[in-house]
Amino acid sequence: MTEPVTLKTVAKHAGVSYQTVSKVVHNQGQISPALRQRIQKSIDELGYRPNAAAQALRTHASHLIGYSWSLERKDHSSFILDQFQHDIVEDAEDAGYHILLVPRRTEHDVDSHFRELVKARRVDGFILSSIEYNDPRIESVARLKVPFVSFGRSHTSDATACVDVDGRAGIAKAVHHLIDSGHRRIAIIAWPDSSRVGNDRLAGYLDVMSDAGLPVEPAWIVRGTGETEYGYSAAQQLLAIPEPSRPSAIVTVLDSIAMGAMQAVETCGLIVGRDIAVTGFDDMPTTRHLKPGLTTIRQPIREVARAVLSLLLAQVNGEQSVVQPLMLSPELVIRESSQGYGHVDHEKGALSTVTA
Amino acid sequence: MTEPVTLKTVAKHAGVSYQTVSKVVHNQGQISPALRQRIQKSIDELGYRPNAAAQALRTHASHLIGYSWSLERKDHSSFILDQFQHDIVEDAEDAGYHILLVPRRTEHDVDSHFRELVKARRVDGFILSSIEYNDPRIESVARLKVPFVSFGRSHTSDATACVDVDGRAGIAKAVHHLIDSGHRRIAIIAWPDSSRVGNDRLAGYLDVMSDAGLPVEPAWIVRGTGETEYGYSAAQQLLAIPEPSRPSAIVTVLDSIAMGAMQAVETCGLIVGRDIAVTGFDDMPTTRHLKPGLTTIRQPIREVARAVLSLLLAQVNGEQSVVQPLMLSPELVIRESSQGYGHVDHEKGALSTVTA
Repeated sequence: MTEPVTLKTVAKHAGVSYQTVSKVVHNQGQISPALRQRIQKSIDELGYRPNAAAQALRTHASHLIGYSWSLERKDHSSFILDQFQHDIVEDAEDAGYHILLVPRRTEHDVDSHFRELVKARRVDGFILSSIEYNDPRIESVARLKVPFVSFGRSHTSDATACVDVDGRAGIAKAVHHLIDSGHRRIAIIAWPDSSRVGNDRLAGYLDVMSDAGLPVEPAWIVRGTGETEYGYSAAQQLLAIPEPSRPSAIVTVLDSIAMGAMQAVETCGLIVGRDIAVTGFDDMPTTRHLKPGLTTIRQPIREVARAVLSLLLAQVNGEQSVVQPLMLSPELVIRESSQGYGHVDHEKGALSTVTA
Repeated sequence: MTEPVTLKTVAKHAGVSYQTVSKVVHNQGQISPALRQRIQKSIDELGYRPNAAAQALRTHASHLIGYSWSLERKDHSSFILDQFQHDIVEDAEDAGYHILLVPRRTEHDVDSHFRELVKARRVDGFILSSIEYNDPRIESVARLKVPFVSFGRSHTSDATACVDVDGRAGIAKAVHHLIDSGHRRIAIIAWPDSSRVGNDRLAGYLDVMSDAGLPVEPAWIVRGTGETEYGYSAAQQLLAIPEPSRPSAIVTVLDSIAMGAMQAVETCGLIVGRDIAVTGFDDMPTTRHLKPGLTTIRQPIREVARAVLSLLLAQVNGEQSVVQPLMLSPELVIRESSQGYGHVDHEKGALSTVTA
């Protein structure tokens, strides 16, 4: 790397003092137009640019945003978080900010990790995702009194800025659609009660079943962890329930769980969509092109990212900020996996996509 | 945010000059042990920490690494890049660095984007991924004479530090395995010739077929873009080839393409693994638990990330660095999708995973 052009280089080139150049660069003090012009000429000729570190020192703003998510090396692709990161990077760039990755590493002391970044004035604020119950990051960052917004609600985050997708409303849409299609015995493959997101989605199922006056058999609610394999074994368990209790529809809380459930239905010699309806969550591209196409819930990640960044920048700029959680509604995407019951008038194999 | 503790605060607290504190903090000049102790006590009591921006100004090192990848909002989850980002973030943190996201946005002037970051001394170096033929980023960053390492080879990057996975060797392993299993008519579903990665993988197929003296029919090489849907239609095309030319095995360059191919085989009333062998690439978790399990090629991403970071830090620290591309070998993971031909002695449904 060639020696960087500094204020001193410019001063020497223009034949003036370091302080005079500094005044021109920072628009301070009285400088004659002629002198200003001479210094500007040197700045242009040398290609001088104020250094980011120097600017950060002066303005106390780094123009960096720390982005924290869970760094567990998950054995699955996190489609939603991929899209979210993509979108916040793009929006941040448009606003003149860069994203600094600050993963949550469980083995580290979360508190000191954030404190170091703030004390060193590395970042102007934080975006937190992969939020779980009593997330220690929320408390840590709140204590540091720096701007932050979370994607996802924590148990304890009532008074902090947060944007979330209404998973409860999403699952409710799926269950409504199944009831409208004639299903009465609807089961759900869900997550354990330690999962905040899972409980939220399960609540949507219980809401609608109750509102519709439909009884829920305990055996219809399967809770466990995993993805395709879990969906496969959970669906096998549901399909083994003897008639007349056997469910005719299976709601799942994740597309890859739905994928396993669809395989289990087929292994039993039944046809997905015609004999048993299956729904997913996320509208993951891999499952989008399955045959039959998977009915699922699509999260408005583009809008989530935009809202997160705008709430954060409002805080960074000292504007008053919303502290009520901002809830965005997901949409139902209807495909063949839920459409066979009662009406088989759709063309076999055609991807008839309806959004509600 | 409370007023930060600065050198001045420490000086006032210790009753000494700003310069004296600075000497202690930066280990410069002669300070008596008693005075040093007194100042250190003030530093500890006040919790003073040198500011990152100030340190960056002094040392000309930001301890930030720019990570550039393609920001196209791909309609699929990039499992490999997820793992890569995960691993470089973790390794960078261990080495005292943070990762700054510097996406490649096609609509922007790549050159000025990188130049700004370097001129502002925002980053100490770059990691580039999603490398394609004649990638403009390689030339831009090389011209700036800053440390950088790419994950993936570019056409023009002979003399730059780069780490890549040997996709050619990977596909070669899959084809060898199919030949060893008794297959002779082996087809491939590949990518267009504009894809650097795709050409590399296709070369591995052609190498082994030629070495084994097996003829390759033009109709056995399908090239196109897409994932599951593309795999489905490409396999349909291959299965429509009349006997005796119809392939008994289909190699694909991506797991989700293999997934579509497996669906097409089943739609034809054939059984994957028994009637037609199918192989993938990446060992994606979603396809890992398919029935039958997918034989695939696993990329050593953990090792790629480690090599990329260590090559980069060697450059940052002014050590001599390797400029020959560092090639890492992927491994073959054998599951049921390729095992039915000639030997059916494995238990049906069991996940017998063998790595070669």
